[in-house]
Amino acid sequence: MHLTSDRDSTDLSDLAHASARLGIVGGGQLARLTALAALPLGCEVTVLERTGRSPAARLAPRSTVGNWADPAVLQRFAANTDVVTLENEFVPAAVLRQLEQAGHAVYPSAACLELTQDKFIQKQTLAARGLPVPAFRAVASPEDVAAAAGAFGWPLVLKTRRNGYDGRGNFTLRSAADIPAGWQRLRGGDHELLVESFCRFTKELAVIVTRGRDGATVAYPVVETTQRDHICHLVHAPADLPGELAVQASALAVQAVTAVGGVGSFGVELFYTAPGTLAINELAPRVHNSGHYTIEACECSQFENHVRAVLGWPLGRTRMIAPAAAMVNLLGRTESPARPRGLAQALALPGVHVHLYAKATAAPGRKLGHVTALGDTPAEALARAEAAAAAIGFGTPL
Amino acid sequence: MHLTSDRDSTDLSDLAHASARLGIVGGGQLARLTALAALPLGCEVTVLERTGRSPAARLAPRSTVGNWADPAVLQRFAANTDVVTLENEFVPAAVLRQLEQAGHAVYPSAACLELTQDKFIQKQTLAARGLPVPAFRAVASPEDVAAAAGAFGWPLVLKTRRNGYDGRGNFTLRSAADIPAGWQRLRGGDHELLVESFCRFTKELAVIVTRGRDGATVAYPVVETTQRDHICHLVHAPADLPGELAVQASALAVQAVTAVGGVGSFGVELFYTAPGTLAINELAPRVHNSGHYTIEACECSQFENHVRAVLGWPLGRTRMIAPAAAMVNLLGRTESPARPRGLAQALALPGVHVHLYAKATAAPGRKLGHVTALGDTPAEALARAEAAAAAIGFGTPL
Repeated sequence: MHLTSDRDSTDLSDLAHASARLGIVGGGQLARLTALAALPLGCEVTVLERTGRSPAARLAPRSTVGNWADPAVLQRFAANTDVVTLENEFVPAAVLRQLEQAGHAVYPSAACLELTQDKFIQKQTLAARGLPVPAFRAVASPEDVAAAAGAFGWPLVLKTRRNGYDGRGNFTLRSAADIPAGWQRLRGGDHELLVESFCRFTKELAVIVTRGRDGATVAYPVVETTQRDHICHLVHAPADLPGELAVQASALAVQAVTAVGGVGSFGVELFYTAPGTLAINELAPRVHNSGHYTIEACECSQFENHVRAVLGWPLGRTRMIAPAAAMVNLLGRTESPARPRGLAQALALPGVHVHLYAKATAAPGRKLGHVTALGDTPAEALARAEAAAAAIGFGTPL
Repeated sequence: MHLTSDRDSTDLSDLAHASARLGIVGGGQLARLTALAALPLGCEVTVLERTGRSPAARLAPRSTVGNWADPAVLQRFAANTDVVTLENEFVPAAVLRQLEQAGHAVYPSAACLELTQDKFIQKQTLAARGLPVPAFRAVASPEDVAAAAGAFGWPLVLKTRRNGYDGRGNFTLRSAADIPAGWQRLRGGDHELLVESFCRFTKELAVIVTRGRDGATVAYPVVETTQRDHICHLVHAPADLPGELAVQASALAVQAVTAVGGVGSFGVELFYTAPGTLAINELAPRVHNSGHYTIEACECSQFENHVRAVLGWPLGRTRMIAPAAAMVNLLGRTESPARPRGLAQALALPGVHVHLYAKATAAPGRKLGHVTALGDTPAEALARAEAAAAAIGFGTPL
């Protein structure tokens, strides 16, 4: 790869063509899919990631290699952009605030990250606006957990307040006997934790909301997500829900993103429980796995709308252009090189769109790609997506 | 830009992720749009172009800078690919044959280019299969042109046999008095020329055909194209035609691509004349401007199908997923930097998709981008595409 290191000066002599210079902090698949939406709009895209072989850097030649937790690196990166955006919620808000104070445009903003990257503060923020969330409480000791159980009942979910994803940072406690193991697993002595009432949901739902710099919002259709081992496995779009509940879920998602002052595309996860009630599980201040289906299934994808939002351009319409869509993640199963197998079999199926992320190595549970299938019915879309995903493997066969 | 020059060794140490290494000769917008379709399929894309700032090289960091007319450069480029494909019909077939003889996979093949890059041979090949083409004849002197007029009548179109595009290399002769000017303009003493009977068409049509390495073919809907100053200005999809004529146009296009042994996506231009007859105007052995609408309007675009075809993968379905689409090219008007203006106004329109090619400089007639709009009716699609295109300009306002 021929990338600038963070010590190099970036060649800026040829940007006369660019509609905007978009910097993305993080170079994983979310940055890659965002870049693939930004390039047709004439953006010059750069990413900041620790390795020059990140999925996004492979198609963003001017990218910077460096640690985004280092304020000096971030400042140098931002200097060559018009807008900095984020592919994850882990960049410390304080570091983003330094960028803003230096005059850089950062979306979502440091203020938004302060309200979202700590799950306890996020839940406080949503609850303060009257939005429904499961009962929650910050805990500083195993005794606090036991006290919360007295108030909320069992089971409880113990969570790290920061840096959790794909189930990492979550531990379900079924009784008091589980508290020591949970406290140890999540390193309660070192990390700030919270507990939540365990939600006995009927369905897990998600809504992508894009909010512009002017506060305008659009919401994508409500989808149903199915997790496997705490990782998103399958997304059905649209969710099979009574119309009024879909309207309610969409409204809650818009209110949640507005409550945190979000700008860009955000993923809002909700629980749907049996009596027909909804609760917000959590909100991610970034494009979201549950919205990958929008690339082919919606008029304007979550990625293009994210680019439009952070650059201050008008938002595109979010309606589906197919009756049904299903998205299945392609996960690694073993530690191996990530060369794909079975692509031709997958592409032989009608209505199938394959997205590979160009990660160098596979690992168990690592997201290496996804498949979206459109169909005339939900069953048709699902069958196609599952068949295509089943055909594709990585590295040497098991 | 951080690109390999043709003297550098390309870093191949990290291709474990790639589903295939696709090399594209030429780095313009057709290569860029092809790369944008190949990247999601996990391909490592490289382009070979004289400048490192070509539209495609901006998103293909491993690309090679060099002259593709130089066989040694091409050989070095091909050595780092699994398949070499072309974005234009100008690479000499003899040079491609050397690549093939060295063991490289080249699609479309040298044999196909021999039958297509010389318009006289192309027409001979199509006519020999019984396919309808306007009357044509090779001409070696102005006297030959006059003799052809005696056989075909006036007007005639004088053409260079090679390297013409967007009307460059064409000259319409309305009477014998025009022959000297045409002969001089096309440099008949230096270039091989042909003449064709002038076709008084009612509509100009185009069909994209993709043909696989196994000979399987798919055809996209027949579209109507409108030229302005010999450059494609507008594409309507589908064309407003009696159903049987659309079937016939599609069949002719498939036969034409099969006749030349094409592999990949090819553009076939046809004339529709008043009594309801069709003639093949010409065939381009590459993805084609008349097929840009397929990115949003069809299940699998001409670009993805080109990638699938040349890599030996199954072809995707070509049906439209919207009732109507219109595509308008964005052309430069003056010599200036090519920074776009008016993007926000264009993006405010519903159903509009903007594609900018990231060319550094604008020039009169230079293709700098295109707009595709979908609509429920042809009139709606057209109005949206025209409005979006009218909003976008480049460089400083006129």
